[in-house]
Amino acid sequence: MLQAALRAGSAGRRSVFEVFTRRLPEGRRYGVVAGTGRVLDAVENFRFDAPVLEFLAEQRIVDGPTLDWLADYRFRGDIWGYPEGEVYFPGSPIMRVEGTFAEAVLLETVILSILNHDSAVAAAASRMSVAAGGRPLIEMGARRTHELAAVAAARAAYVGGFTSTSDLAAGFRYNIPTVGTSAHAFTLLHDSERDAFRAQVDSLGGGTTLLVDTFDVTEAVRMAVEIAGPDLGAVRIDSGDLLLLAHRVRQQLDDLGATKTRIVVTSDLDEYAIASLAAAPVDAYGVGTQLVTGSGHPTCSMVYKLVARADSDGADAPLRPVAKKSMGGKSSIGGRKWAARRVDADGVAEAEVVGTGPVPQELAGRQLAVELVRAGEVVAREPLDAARDRHARARAGLPMSAMQLSRGEAVLPTEYA
Amino acid sequence: MLQAALRAGSAGRRSVFEVFTRRLPEGRRYGVVAGTGRVLDAVENFRFDAPVLEFLAEQRIVDGPTLDWLADYRFRGDIWGYPEGEVYFPGSPIMRVEGTFAEAVLLETVILSILNHDSAVAAAASRMSVAAGGRPLIEMGARRTHELAAVAAARAAYVGGFTSTSDLAAGFRYNIPTVGTSAHAFTLLHDSERDAFRAQVDSLGGGTTLLVDTFDVTEAVRMAVEIAGPDLGAVRIDSGDLLLLAHRVRQQLDDLGATKTRIVVTSDLDEYAIASLAAAPVDAYGVGTQLVTGSGHPTCSMVYKLVARADSDGADAPLRPVAKKSMGGKSSIGGRKWAARRVDADGVAEAEVVGTGPVPQELAGRQLAVELVRAGEVVAREPLDAARDRHARARAGLPMSAMQLSRGEAVLPTEYA
Repeated sequence: MLQAALRAGSAGRRSVFEVFTRRLPEGRRYGVVAGTGRVLDAVENFRFDAPVLEFLAEQRIVDGPTLDWLADYRFRGDIWGYPEGEVYFPGSPIMRVEGTFAEAVLLETVILSILNHDSAVAAAASRMSVAAGGRPLIEMGARRTHELAAVAAARAAYVGGFTSTSDLAAGFRYNIPTVGTSAHAFTLLHDSERDAFRAQVDSLGGGTTLLVDTFDVTEAVRMAVEIAGPDLGAVRIDSGDLLLLAHRVRQQLDDLGATKTRIVVTSDLDEYAIASLAAAPVDAYGVGTQLVTGSGHPTCSMVYKLVARADSDGADAPLRPVAKKSMGGKSSIGGRKWAARRVDADGVAEAEVVGTGPVPQELAGRQLAVELVRAGEVVAREPLDAARDRHARARAGLPMSAMQLSRGEAVLPTEYA
Repeated sequence: MLQAALRAGSAGRRSVFEVFTRRLPEGRRYGVVAGTGRVLDAVENFRFDAPVLEFLAEQRIVDGPTLDWLADYRFRGDIWGYPEGEVYFPGSPIMRVEGTFAEAVLLETVILSILNHDSAVAAAASRMSVAAGGRPLIEMGARRTHELAAVAAARAAYVGGFTSTSDLAAGFRYNIPTVGTSAHAFTLLHDSERDAFRAQVDSLGGGTTLLVDTFDVTEAVRMAVEIAGPDLGAVRIDSGDLLLLAHRVRQQLDDLGATKTRIVVTSDLDEYAIASLAAAPVDAYGVGTQLVTGSGHPTCSMVYKLVARADSDGADAPLRPVAKKSMGGKSSIGGRKWAARRVDADGVAEAEVVGTGPVPQELAGRQLAVELVRAGEVVAREPLDAARDRHARARAGLPMSAMQLSRGEAVLPTEYA
């Protein structure tokens, strides 16, 4: 596309691309924007270095003029979008990229990859954090997804409401709080469970978390408190009937005087399993597979569509709305869009309003998009906690039905103004 | 775990970890081992550099002696496993890592991340390639998954039977054949569909693939042949009723004399949609979302379990089988395992045989594991085509029912000898 547009003289036409989704995953009430911070890093660093240019040349993927153009590539356009952690609905213009066609079309894949992946994980995390109430959630899914997707997943989970991660690479890269527990292998390495517990407590102190389900849970809990004392930090249960075991272990810990020792449960949890443990004496949940695979929806269906472009080169050439008109439900709405969230008299969100014309006065202060990149420079970097806090606020501003785990429609209608 | 084991003096015990899965994803007939080549790269490069060690020290994640140990870390043990592309079943010992506890336990997450992700994509790819018969399959899912998972997914898809990828980074990294088509944005950029087609043909020649469903398919096909001539390479249809459109477009192309022009279809395809197009005049399938998300199963449930370890340090200390004994379906079988695929009189596979004792004479020549790493050195690098060819052979050796897309049990029983 790039090569043909360069040759045809259309590559320099000012163009507006928008990221949006036509629908939420089936049954979901809201989406969560995540990955925005990673998009900004990716856009800033998007270059074609010598080995890549050589590959493109050797494989004859593009011609000489295109190679020259790619060698100088650097995005110099503008990006606006929903800030990270914000919620979204079908049709929400989540991100808008403006620049020449050539410079903007090249970013399609990386922007969609990041937003589709990270938002899918954040949406699952958000539902799990609703289900967990105020209890801490530990991200433990690294081994269930691609090794670097895992790091991004830990980040997205944190935005969605998780408390910490067991992925040290995510702690290193994004400064997310890290925690860990031991595995069954640690117990089995030693000549007895007693030796294993003693080794762990000797090294990490009594505040550590001991894994108690390698052999017999009751015996392990008894021994754990015997070795670590009543100030033992926590025990982890990773198999069996968690509801039953949590009650039994809590009783046993209390009987042993270990009233402050916490109970951490893991074992293929999802938002429904978490919710079903609400009445159990559980102090923290560790979640893996279902979190990093989006709890049934491992990707969002965000697309990156050309919605307007100029008829000629030049930054001042007027923009013309464009849209695909074909059959099959893939039509889109042309024109550069604004979006605002209308609230009712109590301040509860009641509609996502999207339009292409002037913004109505009463919605001017409720616009959702913020400036992210201006003439190629990132202008909206923020700490990850800002996105996490924003998500908690945005979710709290939705109607109560957003918190239902059951399947349903989007909690806000999208209105086109 | 590492710190406690180092301090307790158990870190140096020779240990055997095995990767296996307790079950296939629901309804699947076989699994596909993929990612082995990436595991070898990861193991070879697994190090702790200065910034990471500083992070671990500053955050007080591990103590001084552990930091010193990590600074010198390099895996010096042995790895055996099913070669890449091989099929697997519940209980198949897909990979075996032997070394000291300390050096082997550190590899758990990276090995599982790679195998769980890549094998999930390869399994979906394999089913899609069965459904496609001999027709080419193009991987087009980059924008639906994490930006680097996408590159690994293109690789795994190739192992599973895909023909090419639209992900240039995967072509660059793994030498996979790359192809591309234009997007609706390219058509919409121009003042007319005619201008867009002309621009593309001028730049890429008549052998290019024109996208014909931006406005009216019939009109677009007519114009495409008018502009490119009857030697037009291909047209792509990305929306609508693909079965109906493929027939109509084929008829139209033939009437226009473009009898060699191919028809490429895309649009949320999965193995079932591909199979349903078997009788349609389709020449290639482009597959995105469902491929890179494992067609409903985005991860495998492979685990990495300690199955044997020595009672003391030293390479000669005898190994003792170990296993978790707790409730909840998570028990495992202790001991270092061999595996062989038994065939019937016609040479068709009839059982996956797994054992811990001596290998029966009649199975000695049918063992599945090969040596991958010896004393820390990779000994089994191979071109990706070798894995792709191996998968085609392994799948062809299974009972015919393996090719059924319908849900069912694993096509081979796993027998414990």
